[in-house]
Amino acid sequence: MLVDQPGRRLSRRHLLLGGAAAGIGAVGAVGIELATNARPQVVAQPLNGTQTVPFYGVHQAGIDTVPQSNATIIALDLAPTTDAAALRRLMKVLTSDAARLSQGEAALADSEPELAVAPARLTVTFGFGPGLVALAGGTAPTWLRPLPAFGVDRLDPAWGDGDLLLQIAADDALTVAHATRMLLKDSRSFGTVRWVQTGFRRAPGSVKTGTTMRNLFGQVDGTVNFVPGTPDFERLVWGAASNPGWMLGGTGFVLRRIAMGLDKWDKLDRSGREASVGRTLSNGAPLTGTNETDAPDFAAKTAIGFPVIPEFSHLRRARSENPDERILRRGYNYDDAPTGGSVSNSGLLFVSFQADIDAQFVPIQRRIDALDLLNVWITPIGSAVFAIPPGCATGGYIGDTLF
Amino acid sequence: MLVDQPGRRLSRRHLLLGGAAAGIGAVGAVGIELATNARPQVVAQPLNGTQTVPFYGVHQAGIDTVPQSNATIIALDLAPTTDAAALRRLMKVLTSDAARLSQGEAALADSEPELAVAPARLTVTFGFGPGLVALAGGTAPTWLRPLPAFGVDRLDPAWGDGDLLLQIAADDALTVAHATRMLLKDSRSFGTVRWVQTGFRRAPGSVKTGTTMRNLFGQVDGTVNFVPGTPDFERLVWGAASNPGWMLGGTGFVLRRIAMGLDKWDKLDRSGREASVGRTLSNGAPLTGTNETDAPDFAAKTAIGFPVIPEFSHLRRARSENPDERILRRGYNYDDAPTGGSVSNSGLLFVSFQADIDAQFVPIQRRIDALDLLNVWITPIGSAVFAIPPGCATGGYIGDTLF
Repeated sequence: MLVDQPGRRLSRRHLLLGGAAAGIGAVGAVGIELATNARPQVVAQPLNGTQTVPFYGVHQAGIDTVPQSNATIIALDLAPTTDAAALRRLMKVLTSDAARLSQGEAALADSEPELAVAPARLTVTFGFGPGLVALAGGTAPTWLRPLPAFGVDRLDPAWGDGDLLLQIAADDALTVAHATRMLLKDSRSFGTVRWVQTGFRRAPGSVKTGTTMRNLFGQVDGTVNFVPGTPDFERLVWGAASNPGWMLGGTGFVLRRIAMGLDKWDKLDRSGREASVGRTLSNGAPLTGTNETDAPDFAAKTAIGFPVIPEFSHLRRARSENPDERILRRGYNYDDAPTGGSVSNSGLLFVSFQADIDAQFVPIQRRIDALDLLNVWITPIGSAVFAIPPGCATGGYIGDTLF
Repeated sequence: MLVDQPGRRLSRRHLLLGGAAAGIGAVGAVGIELATNARPQVVAQPLNGTQTVPFYGVHQAGIDTVPQSNATIIALDLAPTTDAAALRRLMKVLTSDAARLSQGEAALADSEPELAVAPARLTVTFGFGPGLVALAGGTAPTWLRPLPAFGVDRLDPAWGDGDLLLQIAADDALTVAHATRMLLKDSRSFGTVRWVQTGFRRAPGSVKTGTTMRNLFGQVDGTVNFVPGTPDFERLVWGAASNPGWMLGGTGFVLRRIAMGLDKWDKLDRSGREASVGRTLSNGAPLTGTNETDAPDFAAKTAIGFPVIPEFSHLRRARSENPDERILRRGYNYDDAPTGGSVSNSGLLFVSFQADIDAQFVPIQRRIDALDLLNVWITPIGSAVFAIPPGCATGGYIGDTLF
């Protein structure tokens, strides 16, 4: 066998290492084991591929999960023949297979079960578009509709909207490919693929755990972000009193496909780039600070009286005085094949989760739209909004609070 | 800084671990260190991202290199204005930047130097098409031309041929994306992108080191392969007396884009699948054996007198009686977005290296073309042949033996 059920083989190691990813902590545990034994033992590293994220729970996985290196995000259009009963069947099958695959088990009718052996922290997150909620006879959250038009948008409908969202993410591209195929096979008689967007971050172990991602402009991207488990996270990601009851434990999903004009960006010098963002390129520190997580000093002035962090900078425009206007960012880079004479076809799959899109995401985007120098180099070309229903218990299915 | 030059920080660990990837061997070394010290020490894992493959040498890297998880393969068409002198300038710049990036250094005019910090075993391998060799005024190897037409081919010229090949591979997609962009920027005034093909294997650490890859049919793919450093490898990959002198230390490159009809494949039961390949799906063993690397017994018969490994099986058709008809395989899976009503757009970037394509690759492909049951489910849709020049010394450039 390809992997010979490493999860089981490694069970003793998993106990020793607490099932944790390899890293300082894990190696520390190795040291402890060695210290308590007369002779040193060879303890193999647990494989990244055997790591799993629980599927069942109050919330869906893939939201507060540390972002995996690879993601494929898919929107389906439901077929006209798919009614509420069919939709329920579909969600039961998808839930069951997503749960199995996330634990390294083959899908129920898996045609290539040998590809399921390395879950690599696979998560599958489902979202519902307005059409699906209507079909299910449910009440939609007020914000479940296309975002308002922004001046910077150059939206291609080919990258927008949809009825059913699948966000499939893992630390291994083959795992994502196999899960994608199994779930699309489950779906094929219920709907068609509207769009597929694939993105990446650094591979597991490429850089230190906890390093903020960089986008293809080279910028540290996503410094200010929610920390799961904090009270604000509970309230602003999972909770919104205004959401309908079936959304309890769910959240709102925004995907913006943002084309990045790398050629134009490359014409800008480093100080211009840093001014446009308000952060240094070297480590992402605010221009008034030293370290990435230093609080920006918006009042600081240069010797000649201009703000150190310019008024037009992304950092200033994206930041709100209102602490409720915050979002959980979980984006990915994309780099598709350049066409024609172009040298790149690259950008960011900006993904954010927030309980109330109108109250949290839209005000930020309005400020960026009105004045943000970064708009010179970036162009939103796709936009999609979905309601992420809560997780479900074993035996339940995603959407069981709705229909 | 993003990574804070971990390569330098980890130098003591690199010494301890021999610069090797984490694995049994490395952990063994940790054990030794611990055994020779009074108190156990915490030894952090070297990051995958800091690992490098030497660029300069007798041969180009990326051929006998253990395949990285991500590869982007690009063909350029040279501009009509690019003459031999310009070509030399281009290869000097590309060589210099590929060498720098492979060692985790920014390209010479790197616009996003912060993206260069995690080389993650980056290799860049250059290849020359017939047009480039002619432009350089060199003698082409006899096999440097499109492959003969095969009956199974349904070739799309959009995936074929080209003047200059770049195979960019690393264990991190962001590293590949950055290197791709830097090298395409170097090239843009000399030519245009003809095609880009992107593929993947399992992520580093997903499965045990040395595990043969699986393709998207779930098959173990590439069991019989050359082992670098063996006499046959020297002769059949690096050496061919019939190649022109400038190719000494070089090899031949074949890329076949092979679409895999996953839907059709899924209709076949497991025994049918195993018969079509001649190997088990569970571990890739020949149908006459137990383990993946067991030698197939082509004479073995079933109880009713049929060969256990069918005459039409891929294993039998791809195998030659002539030991010189062998190739070094180094392929990648691809999984592009499905279009229209399809559920997948997937396949294999079949890549092989061999000193003499006519003598080694073509006979194998002829046998497969004539009779190989696998042809029912796979379709070559792209085909490209390039001459891979030798490596170069520090200060030299790839192609300096040619022009």
